[in-house]
Amino acid sequence: MMTSRKTPQASNKSKSTSHRGSLTKFARSLLDEWRKLGLPLSNATIVVAVSGGADSVALLLAINELIRAKKLTLTIVVAHFNHKLRGAAGDADARWVKSLVRQLTYRIAAGSADVKSRARKQKENVEQAARKARYDFLARAARSHKSRAVLTAHTMNDQVETVLLNFMRGAGLDGLTGMDAVRPLTIASETILARPLLCWARRQDTRNYCATKSVEYREDQMNFDEAFSRVRVRNQLVPLMESFNTRLIDNVARSAEILRQDNLALEGAAARLLELSSTPKESRQNSNHLRLDLIKLAPVALRRRALRLWLMRHRGSLTRIDLAHIAAIEKLLVSTKSGRIIELPGGATVIRKGGFLQFCASERGRP
Amino acid sequence: MMTSRKTPQASNKSKSTSHRGSLTKFARSLLDEWRKLGLPLSNATIVVAVSGGADSVALLLAINELIRAKKLTLTIVVAHFNHKLRGAAGDADARWVKSLVRQLTYRIAAGSADVKSRARKQKENVEQAARKARYDFLARAARSHKSRAVLTAHTMNDQVETVLLNFMRGAGLDGLTGMDAVRPLTIASETILARPLLCWARRQDTRNYCATKSVEYREDQMNFDEAFSRVRVRNQLVPLMESFNTRLIDNVARSAEILRQDNLALEGAAARLLELSSTPKESRQNSNHLRLDLIKLAPVALRRRALRLWLMRHRGSLTRIDLAHIAAIEKLLVSTKSGRIIELPGGATVIRKGGFLQFCASERGRP
Repeated sequence: MMTSRKTPQASNKSKSTSHRGSLTKFARSLLDEWRKLGLPLSNATIVVAVSGGADSVALLLAINELIRAKKLTLTIVVAHFNHKLRGAAGDADARWVKSLVRQLTYRIAAGSADVKSRARKQKENVEQAARKARYDFLARAARSHKSRAVLTAHTMNDQVETVLLNFMRGAGLDGLTGMDAVRPLTIASETILARPLLCWARRQDTRNYCATKSVEYREDQMNFDEAFSRVRVRNQLVPLMESFNTRLIDNVARSAEILRQDNLALEGAAARLLELSSTPKESRQNSNHLRLDLIKLAPVALRRRALRLWLMRHRGSLTRIDLAHIAAIEKLLVSTKSGRIIELPGGATVIRKGGFLQFCASERGRP
Repeated sequence: MMTSRKTPQASNKSKSTSHRGSLTKFARSLLDEWRKLGLPLSNATIVVAVSGGADSVALLLAINELIRAKKLTLTIVVAHFNHKLRGAAGDADARWVKSLVRQLTYRIAAGSADVKSRARKQKENVEQAARKARYDFLARAARSHKSRAVLTAHTMNDQVETVLLNFMRGAGLDGLTGMDAVRPLTIASETILARPLLCWARRQDTRNYCATKSVEYREDQMNFDEAFSRVRVRNQLVPLMESFNTRLIDNVARSAEILRQDNLALEGAAARLLELSSTPKESRQNSNHLRLDLIKLAPVALRRRALRLWLMRHRGSLTRIDLAHIAAIEKLLVSTKSGRIIELPGGATVIRKGGFLQFCASERGRP
C-alpha cells in the first residue's frame, strides 16, 4: 500500500525530471505510442481508468510526467470503479486512488456497482458482469466530462492472456488479434477507447516504473483468485509457456499485430466483394439482395466474411449467428433450387431467388 | 508389445468384418477422409509410414480393413524407419512391425540411420535430424516402389501440438494453420504426402481402434523424454490447456482449418497483386522488375506476402529472410530517392529505380 508520505515525492520527482528536460524511458515510450495512436496532445479532456494496480498507476504517473514536462497539455480525469467484490479491500483501493489523484491534483470520477447481484440477475459470470459494469461506468464518465478518449492500462501481458483465452476457445483470426489499441468506446461512439501500453509495455515494466517513481501500488487480491480463467492463464499457463520460449510475451504480442494486418486485408477484400455483389438498382448499402455469381467464386475465407458482413448490415448484429448458419447459406449458393429458405436465430430469413440471395427481416423487426 | 498370437486374429477379424459388409466407425471415417483428400482408391502403390505406435498401427489396420472390405484396391508398402536413438528398443520395434506386416501380408521397406551422429555433423537438434532422416527415407521408399503417395498417421493431437509449438515461437498465419493434410512429399515432387488422420482422429481414437482390433501397439519411450519440446507440449501444456477447455483439441484443430482458408485467400490475393505488379515487357513469371504503384497502395498483409513471393521467385528460397528485410524493402517503396540498395543474406540485392524495384542475384549466383 502506498503511504501518503510517498505520493508527494513522486509528484515532485516528476517535476524535477521535467526541469532536467529528460524523460524516463517509460514516459518516452508512452509518448511515442501516444503519437502513433493519434491521441490528442493538447486541448482535450482524457479519462484515465485507474484501479490502483501497477499497470494503471504507471499509466497515470507517466501521463503526469508528460504533463509536467509540457509534452501533453490535457485535462485529466481519473476514473476509478469499485466492483464491490472484495468488501473492505475494494473500499481501501478507492480511498488510495483518491488520495493519489488528489496529490497529483487531477479530477476524479469514482463509481461503484454491486457486480455480484448484477451477474446473478443477468445470468452472467462475475468476470463478464464486472467488465460490463466497468465499461458502462467509463462511458458515463466520458460523457459527463465531455472526454474525447478513455484510456486503459492493458499491457502486452494482458494482450497475450486475451489471445490465449481466445485461442483455447477455438477463435478465428479476429480473436487471435486480441484487443485493439484504439477503438470506439461503444458502437458508433465518438469517444475512443485507447490502450497506450498494449503494444509495448510488459507488466514488469509498469512495476519497475512505479518503483522508480517511488510509488507503491495496490495488489488486487482478485489476481490470486484462480476461479478466474484469466488469473489461471496468468499464473499457470503463461509461466509454463515461457518455459518453452522465454520471449513468449513478445512473440505472441507481435504475432497478434501481424494477424491484425491479415484480418484487415481480408475484411477489406470481403467488403469490396460485398459491394460488388450488392444489386445496383437500389442504394448499395441498403440492398437486401445479393448477387451470387461473384460470391460463389470467391475464396471461402472471403465468401464467409462477406456473408457475415451482409447479415450484420441487415440483421443489425451477428449475435447467435455461428458457422453452421453461414455454412447453410453457402449451401444455398450452390443449390440448384430456387425458393429454399434459411431461418436465422430471432426469426429473420435468407432465401435464394434465382441468381440472388434475399434477406428478410423477422416479422417482429418489421414496422 | 504385440504377441504373435494376436496379429493373425486382427487380420482374421478384419476379414470377418468385411464378410458382414459393415465397417468400423474408424475405418469409415478414414474412407471418408480418403475420398475428401482425393487419394487413389485403386491401381496404385501407397507407402504407409509405420513406427509401431498406436497412431500408425491404427492407420495400417484401418487401411487393411478397407482393403479386406474391397473399398480399396491398392498395393501397400509399409515403411518403417529405425532412428537408432534407443538401441535395443528401436530394434525390437523394427522386428515387431516386420512381424505385423508379414501377418497382414504386405510388403515392407525398412530403413535406419544413425540420427545422433547426423545431428552432430549437421549441427541440428536431434528432433530435426530425426525428422529429416525419416522423410529422406520415405522419399527413397516412394521412389523405389513407384508410389503415388506416402501416408503418415499424424492425428489432430499432433496438429494441435504443432500449432502450439509454432504459436509459442510467434508464428504468423502460416504457422498457425499447422500441418497440411496433403502436400507434395518434397518440393515439386509428384508423390504426395498425405495425413489422412490429421483432420478427424484424436490420439485416443487410434488407441481405441487398436484395442477393438486386439492389436497391442508399441509405446515409444521417446514419448516420455521431456528433453523434446513436443513431448512436453503433449504431456504438460495440452493437459493444462484442456483444464481451461475440455474441447481444446477440437477447437484448435478446427481453428487451424479456418485459418488455412484465410491464409489461402491472402496468398491468392498476393499472387494476383504480384502478377499485376510484374512488368509486362518481359514474361511475367521471370521479370525481375516490380511496379511500385499498386504494391504501395495494397494492405500491409498483401504487400508483404507479394514481396516475399517475389523474392521467393527470384532468390529461389526465403531462407534467412525475416521481417526486417521485408520492412527494409517496404521502406524503399515510400523512399523518394532512387538508387537505394537493400542487401539480402547470401548477397542478392534489391534496388529501387524510379517506379520499380529490381532484384539482382548475387555475383556467386550469376553465370
